[in-house]
Amino acid sequence: MQVGIIGVGLIGGSMAVDLKNRGFADRVVGVEADALHASAAKELGLVDEIVSYEECIAMSDMIVVAVPVSIAIRMIPDILDKVDRQVVTDVCSTKEKINDMVRYHPNRKNFVAAHPMAGTEYSGPWAALPGLFDGRAGIICNAEDSYMQAVELVKQMYDCLNMRVIYMRAAHHDMHTAYISHISHITSFALALTVLEKEKNEKNIFDLASGGFSSTVRLAKSNADMWAPIFSQNKENILTVLDTYIEKLQEFKKHIADYDEKGVKDLIHKANKIKRIIR
Amino acid sequence: MQVGIIGVGLIGGSMAVDLKNRGFADRVVGVEADALHASAAKELGLVDEIVSYEECIAMSDMIVVAVPVSIAIRMIPDILDKVDRQVVTDVCSTKEKINDMVRYHPNRKNFVAAHPMAGTEYSGPWAALPGLFDGRAGIICNAEDSYMQAVELVKQMYDCLNMRVIYMRAAHHDMHTAYISHISHITSFALALTVLEKEKNEKNIFDLASGGFSSTVRLAKSNADMWAPIFSQNKENILTVLDTYIEKLQEFKKHIADYDEKGVKDLIHKANKIKRIIR
Repeated sequence: MQVGIIGVGLIGGSMAVDLKNRGFADRVVGVEADALHASAAKELGLVDEIVSYEECIAMSDMIVVAVPVSIAIRMIPDILDKVDRQVVTDVCSTKEKINDMVRYHPNRKNFVAAHPMAGTEYSGPWAALPGLFDGRAGIICNAEDSYMQAVELVKQMYDCLNMRVIYMRAAHHDMHTAYISHISHITSFALALTVLEKEKNEKNIFDLASGGFSSTVRLAKSNADMWAPIFSQNKENILTVLDTYIEKLQEFKKHIADYDEKGVKDLIHKANKIKRIIR
Repeated sequence: MQVGIIGVGLIGGSMAVDLKNRGFADRVVGVEADALHASAAKELGLVDEIVSYEECIAMSDMIVVAVPVSIAIRMIPDILDKVDRQVVTDVCSTKEKINDMVRYHPNRKNFVAAHPMAGTEYSGPWAALPGLFDGRAGIICNAEDSYMQAVELVKQMYDCLNMRVIYMRAAHHDMHTAYISHISHITSFALALTVLEKEKNEKNIFDLASGGFSSTVRLAKSNADMWAPIFSQNKENILTVLDTYIEKLQEFKKHIADYDEKGVKDLIHKANKIKRIIR
């Protein structure tokens, strides 16, 4: 089988290597709009060949759209215009707006809306890693809107990537990812902005950054072109969870201002419950 | 040389093993108020012996106070009442209030206010790790208030722990640690509280937690008894940085609410500058 990956960056590039090495694809071709990224993807051996967008769609059995969601939302209907037998899937972090865009497309059933929940704070083909998806969740949304065989093929692809496949409604997906993944990115971006503003002398940050700070601020290195559209597309859920988050900070602020150590401890004990869930 | 560690938890226990294994101490004794922790520290081989507080002070050449800062602030003056030749140091994350407490103590010069900036989100003797301090910063505050030989001995101890020794005023230390370390803990605690409130079904958190969420929320597992007193003692600095942090969140909120992707991207690009500093 030939797999075509549109957007050979962190996610597309990582999928490409594992799908080829683990035998899901005989051949993997890539489409990459950025000339430097395209050359690097070829040089790094992520794909067998860089081809044009039209060639990729025409030649591939399965097409994976791995571009920022603002581009994907226009690209997926266009790809569906051009397919007959091919299965099309995506990797975007928001699903409801994409789903809305293709709802009445005559080839809707060729498309499987999906989200492999893996990544790092880096981007571009040089960030691609074998094994990136191992053990992570692969979400398939609104599977009943796709051909059963198309869903089965995407499931086989996620099995090959060692992902735990979870089926979910697009609306639920967007709510849960806002509550867990998207908010974490905003809290990290805001932390980086705060520290950079307060510590004008970067040497202090370098000297005093413990492992804890590095871990908490890690996601602040994430890519703007990827994340800004996610926040737009998932606006309502994100604003809701951001309000709750600011409320929690205000609770800390109040107890600290009052020297209320018991109040602070109670909040920390509640927060500690995350231990039961996250290793 | 005999080193006495008061409080054989994550920090005290980790210091104990490296100081013994790397030859800084011939013998390490521990004081531990919690009976279970005391037995575990002995069983795990962190210290040669568990002794009483009085014995520890009388027998040791160097005494390391590794208890929560709310206890340390009363304990350090009491220890200084009891010493003659011994060097006393601490490991607490806030330094100015401790410094105030001992400023006019007749044995002030036996004390070296210090903060080894290392740790994990776990606590207790079972969290102790060899090599915990390697490559991290060891801050020594207001060194001119201590005997030069006492400072030299603490510096040798940090050299043995492979720490980069940095000298700093206590007031600056507290400001910089608020801006970098303390705020990260509050942002993580608040993130855990938010996610636990929004996601009543913990299975969703388990299923959908990516590596990014786990990293950002990691510090929310930290110990309440250690952190609540730090926030009290460093109240002014923490409230200042918390205000800046909430402002940054409000900026994100406004741009997201306005679908202003350019505004969001500008914030993210600024936040990305943390890449230059934090690996």
